[in-house]
Amino acid sequence: MDIAAQMRQIAQNARAASRKLAAAEDAVRQQALLNLAGLLTDRAADVKAANARDVDAARARGLDQARLDRLTITDKVLEAMVQGCREVAAMSDPVGEILSMKKRPNGMLVGRMRVPLGVVAMIFESRPNAAVDAAVLCIKSGNAAILRGGSEAFHSIAALMELIHAALTQAGLPAACVQAPPTTDREAVGALLALDEFIDVVIPRGGEGLIRAVVAQAKMPVLKHYKGVCHTFVDKSADLKRAVDIVLNAKAQRPGTCNSLECLLVHRDVAAEFLPAVGKALGAAGVLCKCCGRSLPLLSLQAKAEPAADDDWGREFLALTLAVKVVDGLDEALEHIARYGSNHTEVILTNDHANAMRFTREADASMVAVNASTRLNDGGELGLGAEIGISTTKLHAYGPMGILELTSAKFVVLGQGQIRE
Amino acid sequence: MDIAAQMRQIAQNARAASRKLAAAEDAVRQQALLNLAGLLTDRAADVKAANARDVDAARARGLDQARLDRLTITDKVLEAMVQGCREVAAMSDPVGEILSMKKRPNGMLVGRMRVPLGVVAMIFESRPNAAVDAAVLCIKSGNAAILRGGSEAFHSIAALMELIHAALTQAGLPAACVQAPPTTDREAVGALLALDEFIDVVIPRGGEGLIRAVVAQAKMPVLKHYKGVCHTFVDKSADLKRAVDIVLNAKAQRPGTCNSLECLLVHRDVAAEFLPAVGKALGAAGVLCKCCGRSLPLLSLQAKAEPAADDDWGREFLALTLAVKVVDGLDEALEHIARYGSNHTEVILTNDHANAMRFTREADASMVAVNASTRLNDGGELGLGAEIGISTTKLHAYGPMGILELTSAKFVVLGQGQIRE
Repeated sequence: MDIAAQMRQIAQNARAASRKLAAAEDAVRQQALLNLAGLLTDRAADVKAANARDVDAARARGLDQARLDRLTITDKVLEAMVQGCREVAAMSDPVGEILSMKKRPNGMLVGRMRVPLGVVAMIFESRPNAAVDAAVLCIKSGNAAILRGGSEAFHSIAALMELIHAALTQAGLPAACVQAPPTTDREAVGALLALDEFIDVVIPRGGEGLIRAVVAQAKMPVLKHYKGVCHTFVDKSADLKRAVDIVLNAKAQRPGTCNSLECLLVHRDVAAEFLPAVGKALGAAGVLCKCCGRSLPLLSLQAKAEPAADDDWGREFLALTLAVKVVDGLDEALEHIARYGSNHTEVILTNDHANAMRFTREADASMVAVNASTRLNDGGELGLGAEIGISTTKLHAYGPMGILELTSAKFVVLGQGQIRE
Repeated sequence: MDIAAQMRQIAQNARAASRKLAAAEDAVRQQALLNLAGLLTDRAADVKAANARDVDAARARGLDQARLDRLTITDKVLEAMVQGCREVAAMSDPVGEILSMKKRPNGMLVGRMRVPLGVVAMIFESRPNAAVDAAVLCIKSGNAAILRGGSEAFHSIAALMELIHAALTQAGLPAACVQAPPTTDREAVGALLALDEFIDVVIPRGGEGLIRAVVAQAKMPVLKHYKGVCHTFVDKSADLKRAVDIVLNAKAQRPGTCNSLECLLVHRDVAAEFLPAVGKALGAAGVLCKCCGRSLPLLSLQAKAEPAADDDWGREFLALTLAVKVVDGLDEALEHIARYGSNHTEVILTNDHANAMRFTREADASMVAVNASTRLNDGGELGLGAEIGISTTKLHAYGPMGILELTSAKFVVLGQGQIRE
């Protein structure tokens, strides 16, 4: 069978399995997740052995340390997967819930019932445990999943899929509820992305190149974010001491993530006081500042600082590098964000209520915050539980996506013979 | 300027205008709609004169009567537009509304704020008043709109756009909040559909051919339905007298619409009683029945009836034609719907509570109803007010789309210095 036919079979099986999964009771879907938690514990050695094959091969091919780290399934990573299964299993069932029923003038009741999206495909890179995270969220929300990971994680994913299939069948669910194409052929991705008749949505997770390639090929809707160019605006009324802690956390706590700070905007009236203070903290954390003309002299004594190039505005550094710009006030901050932001995360630090309200309304991002770190734009932090990704387009979901974002809502009408007049 | 550059300019202007519109107070957006209501009344003669040019030209080119009817702006159509402006103006403002704010363990408040989608493009056929309906919904929900109608309505749309622009500028809003490309060149559509950096979503409205062409070309998300293959299942416990009225309404009230009934499924235990009764009513309304082997003898005495061809199952007749099939029960009905339905509207007529609940859960359609006509799947009937279209994909919206479906929701965090631990 050629790749296209093979992918078609997988997608078709996923569609059939999705109907069974959607109709299954929550107790059954919960049981599948608890089975998986047990299997991940009992058969940890198998998973680690398969993972070691992948890691050894990747090291031999010269993969860099950051990617080797992401590829490695440590005891801690295993424990987090087990924990994830248990936590998601315990969440309340979204499927079939009806969000209020209103009465129309003709007497019929109209409500909306949450339903699974159907078949979710995820195309992802590096971390093999993402397969388990996605499988767990899809099973809970009644969606069949097709998971395509990076070829470097092939054996790890195959070992995890074996456990997922056992967990499903032990609970009486079809193994095809979660599938991973048994091939590393790159053609498989293109073949899957053409199958909009069976796959309802695709979620790419990885670098911008991967995501753009998926968007270019996919015939079905794509839930995605390209990058996170997050700003924090320090207003003149901000608590400057607290602002230092927030900016440091946003930039330096985990600089490789999409919700870390890339550009600091500072009100001119507090620049002379704030920049040396924050510069000291940033300098101590090893952050390089790329500065506008007004901020450079204020930062260069405290931190590693150099003039910003034109393309440093709107740039996602994903490193201990921060663009810094002094602005005349909220208007200029909002203009800068509208021009250079990526609709990901935008923050204002202020004690001015009107400015806080205007910023939350006008800054166009999946999370806008007052007096908090950009790093809090995360499904766990925002209270969604686990997340399957983050969306910076506004269609369907805007921000982190949890189990509710893996559902849709159909209209349900309970009538007593109503007709159209 | 070539077409591509011209469309790019339009889309760029729409993006800039969308920011102003999103930040405008509801009172301003309301005023624009009330201005438009006034202008449509005061300058009705101009609109009708422009429309007469289109209608004359279309008649000369031999357009069929149904399309000529849809093209014609009668006094009744004008009145409906005026009414629409007033009704939508009076709706409560969705923009900036926050849907609850929950407190996280670290003390920060997390909510979701409704925001406009941004720039909405609509590609539509025939009815020029659809331009006003869409403009009104977009203005109210803070979205800029790019409206591309059929070339046969070119002068009508231009006349309506003149009024829309006057209404916007009189309210202090940019005219570019609503634009129609000033060309009938077909290349314009392709050029617009490539501009995903400025246009957030496209809504095609028209025949399946138009919609498939838009989906094939669009780089941005598409909200759409291809067709409505709606079923009604008459269960053995149904009130058969009421069922006759409901089926007749669903099929014959306005057979050219996407929510009219295309296939009747009847439980075998009541087929002998129900089919002659419904056949009589259908026959009187001039409906041709395409029948399965079991239903044909029961219908052929009462209605025009003939054997169904294989491709009559899952077919959208859009005419006084109805496929009829006797099934063994709910399982077979659900199987038939899963195989042939178009995720549009599915109805069960029953007095069995368990069957009603199972059908509402398992039938996969944008509206599922118990004891009501398929024709009620409509924004007005379901309580949304005006609708801009209907979606049968599950991403973002499932069913009729009103002003709320023209919004997204971003996360808003109100903190007091929270950072990521």
